[in-house]
Amino acid sequence: MKSQARIHVGDALGEGAEIRLDEREAHHLRDVLRLAEGDGVAVFNGSDGEWEAVIVGIGKRSAKLIVGERLREQSTEPDLWLVFAPLKRARIDTLVEKATELGVSLLQPVETLHTAVERVNLDRLGMIAAAAAEQCERLTVPRVQPPVSFGKLLAEWPAQRRLLLCAEAGHARPIAGALQAHVNESAAPWAVMIGPEGGFARSELDALAKLPFVMPVGLGPRILRADTAAVAALACWQAILGDGQQRPPHRSSA
Amino acid sequence: MKSQARIHVGDALGEGAEIRLDEREAHHLRDVLRLAEGDGVAVFNGSDGEWEAVIVGIGKRSAKLIVGERLREQSTEPDLWLVFAPLKRARIDTLVEKATELGVSLLQPVETLHTAVERVNLDRLGMIAAAAAEQCERLTVPRVQPPVSFGKLLAEWPAQRRLLLCAEAGHARPIAGALQAHVNESAAPWAVMIGPEGGFARSELDALAKLPFVMPVGLGPRILRADTAAVAALACWQAILGDGQQRPPHRSSA
Repeated sequence: MKSQARIHVGDALGEGAEIRLDEREAHHLRDVLRLAEGDGVAVFNGSDGEWEAVIVGIGKRSAKLIVGERLREQSTEPDLWLVFAPLKRARIDTLVEKATELGVSLLQPVETLHTAVERVNLDRLGMIAAAAAEQCERLTVPRVQPPVSFGKLLAEWPAQRRLLLCAEAGHARPIAGALQAHVNESAAPWAVMIGPEGGFARSELDALAKLPFVMPVGLGPRILRADTAAVAALACWQAILGDGQQRPPHRSSA
Repeated sequence: MKSQARIHVGDALGEGAEIRLDEREAHHLRDVLRLAEGDGVAVFNGSDGEWEAVIVGIGKRSAKLIVGERLREQSTEPDLWLVFAPLKRARIDTLVEKATELGVSLLQPVETLHTAVERVNLDRLGMIAAAAAEQCERLTVPRVQPPVSFGKLLAEWPAQRRLLLCAEAGHARPIAGALQAHVNESAAPWAVMIGPEGGFARSELDALAKLPFVMPVGLGPRILRADTAAVAALACWQAILGDGQQRPPHRSSA
């Protein structure tokens, strides 16, 4: 189903507001979305809902939009983090795209003892997250955080946020049952955590096992790649505890 | 966690059996897995379980293995098909990898009215499925079928196989509840079906709506890309109705 072109903007939104786009954004509008002066586009900024806008000027260096009517109100979204050891480029790009589609609110890279990838390009990942949010009709773009060490992450972890740890070894509950045990709770903050391709170190697993907010879960008998495990766990969480009961906007009878 | 090198072979397996690998397989053993004469490798063929083998000869054109002890018995796996409209190259490759990791038994490309991609390279997809099966420690490799038209697929559909249709529009039950309604049934054959990026045509949706084995399910309020929807639905199916209760081999107390 073809959906309307949507873009994420930094500006405040309201009827009659004027939005100026920079060179990169103007290029996206013109050369990727193939829009021209007079065309409509939906805009969202993560806090004011989604609005209709019209392109009133577009050049090589910039573009200008005028905001019209509000199309959708901003709504509350699940508070779900993804904590992941950095992966190689193609896999981390796909992971950020999928995690955004699956509704994570924040992406937190973590450096573990066996993490093979040192550098994380936050700008690139932020652009991938924004593009995926535009595509999947979210009203927010997940934040991509700078990498943090494993020790600091756990030391500063907010104790009320449950951490679903995808664990291929050791004691773990099957993920469906582990999540279903929480369906009658009111909405709580959660996180999904996956280790690096080489797995967590013994000392890291021991540290995780001592923490009351950590719930080790199993994803079946196959050894999943880190990016597959993340997407599988996020999908199960949304289906069982998240917004899996909701339907896409404007489509319930399309 | 580093796992033992594993390869899928076509030969029958049993203690003392001799296995000859061709040029491509020998290259994989030598240059990708970095193995040499005298090294061990686990082998599986989809029907005889997993066996230890030793490389007794390896050259540019071929390699020879001798099979030792059985490591794992063949076991029954969920009977889960993935039916999907062909996607562009990077996305279809990732989809085949992820679907293999998530335990599908058969991959069935289907040509729908809005399918944009015409050609499917079955050899390449078969190799990706085999590599993913080796990596994730499955004992089987999913079959990759030649593409079939939407009409023929439905006309020849085995009526006892339930078809979970990922539907972003129209009536659909949330996926978790739809699957949980079947947890007390004995193991049945299922399939997950996703449409092309452009969505199913109206006439296709109408045809699907009339079929008793079709269960339209929703995956939440975001519009997922076809490959994301497939992975999400497969993960939920395995967690709720598949082998999500099982743990990886040899790792329960590692």
